[in-house]
Amino acid sequence: MIKRIGFLGPTGTYTEEASLKYDQTADLMPFSTISSIGQAVSSGLINQGVVPIENSLEGSVTFTLDLLISQSGLFISDEIVLPIQHYLLGLPGIHFPDIEVIYSHPQALAQCQTFLDQCFPKATRTASLSTVAAVTDMRNSQIPAAAIAPKRAAKLHNVEIIGQDIQDNSNNVTRFVVLAPQDHDRTGFDKTSICFSFNQDSPGVLYDVLGEFAERKINLAKIESRPTKELLGQYIFLVDCEGHREEPLVNKALSLISERANMFKILGSYPRWDS
Amino acid sequence: MIKRIGFLGPTGTYTEEASLKYDQTADLMPFSTISSIGQAVSSGLINQGVVPIENSLEGSVTFTLDLLISQSGLFISDEIVLPIQHYLLGLPGIHFPDIEVIYSHPQALAQCQTFLDQCFPKATRTASLSTVAAVTDMRNSQIPAAAIAPKRAAKLHNVEIIGQDIQDNSNNVTRFVVLAPQDHDRTGFDKTSICFSFNQDSPGVLYDVLGEFAERKINLAKIESRPTKELLGQYIFLVDCEGHREEPLVNKALSLISERANMFKILGSYPRWDS
Repeated sequence: MIKRIGFLGPTGTYTEEASLKYDQTADLMPFSTISSIGQAVSSGLINQGVVPIENSLEGSVTFTLDLLISQSGLFISDEIVLPIQHYLLGLPGIHFPDIEVIYSHPQALAQCQTFLDQCFPKATRTASLSTVAAVTDMRNSQIPAAAIAPKRAAKLHNVEIIGQDIQDNSNNVTRFVVLAPQDHDRTGFDKTSICFSFNQDSPGVLYDVLGEFAERKINLAKIESRPTKELLGQYIFLVDCEGHREEPLVNKALSLISERANMFKILGSYPRWDS
Repeated sequence: MIKRIGFLGPTGTYTEEASLKYDQTADLMPFSTISSIGQAVSSGLINQGVVPIENSLEGSVTFTLDLLISQSGLFISDEIVLPIQHYLLGLPGIHFPDIEVIYSHPQALAQCQTFLDQCFPKATRTASLSTVAAVTDMRNSQIPAAAIAPKRAAKLHNVEIIGQDIQDNSNNVTRFVVLAPQDHDRTGFDKTSICFSFNQDSPGVLYDVLGEFAERKINLAKIESRPTKELLGQYIFLVDCEGHREEPLVNKALSLISERANMFKILGSYPRWDS
């Protein structure tokens, strides 16, 4: 049976590109929101869902973190890391000097600022709802226009690539996670994501928790906090550590942490992305 | 001389309300972006600037964190905590059953979802650029409309309050910080914000740093991470601890941390908000 994978759409987004990198044989279905992907995985409508969780310039995608924290029966079963490369797209035959307006998502416009300042100092920059919507906006424009979008959007919309890799910072990378009803078996090169909170603040609690990892020489890949949404100043901590939850040392650390915590959830063990 | 305070505008926003709570005698000036407030403080155009840093439901305002990390000569000199209370505003004489469209910022619409479902199951919800812009959109609407906005916007735009405290979650609170060229003197009831990063990952570095606080029984109010924007998986940590940087125990902990860190910055010591 062909696997059904949902992704944050529309067709042509970086999330679709990540999904294709993850599984070329699956049946890919676009969804309009991150939470609708979570629901579709839980209800069995799709087998897995691909959503962004972190960008090297912007930081965490808080919608994804909050979904993982709050929705039961939803786990991370894989991760995908994708370099974000912006392309300048135009209608066939257009020339640089003719372009008067550049469409894209505000984030993409901001990420290509130096390129735009140098090559299009006089062009108007106009916000689109997404980098894919920018291509449609460009097509519908009454005055000569270009769009900043993913490479794949050029093929899908039958427009020309007139500039490639135009982002100012070459360290623009997004990490995606695969959401599934269960996490991944041990591979020997894994990481584990957990979240937890405490009943009360005290100087030592978070320190003691991190000590369970340090004591066992378990490397931490990430630590992040999100509001509990109950009281300002109370947080849910999200920690990524190296190793699989079934490895004895990791298992021991997690069970000691769960004893101290008010809320504790294993978000999943899954293979580390090897670039 | 009258103090000039910049705030994230336009006039009528919650940030203006926080600024008035902080200083009623100052000359308040609206700014359109958080970074323009940072620049205006650094250039001396304004004495202080008020910006949101954290909401109890949405989490950190990453623009503010990144500005504090990257801009030198900019410090936190105070904090203000404001309960966010949404009001339903309409043109004088309008009745609930006539309302066909509700305008507001998408976040405010989401935060009043239960109220809207119960009282306006058939009304269209339409996104505005801000809660203040929603009032203008409501005034310009061809069909009977209402807007979700701060109380202050009613007075400024001469419209009526037709519903108050309509948010679903009563724990909706925003914390604002006052940006200034220097932080605050000791008051005896203070907190200190710092940020730091390490040259390399190792199981123990963050743990050791938190240990400097734990060892001295210094309570941590917050820990947060932001990307370095150089490499995925490398972070700048932001920590709020209790006490002033001039108190001997805090001072000792900070100097030991600065020795271990690759990058280290004291974002400021300032009085803790007492609600």
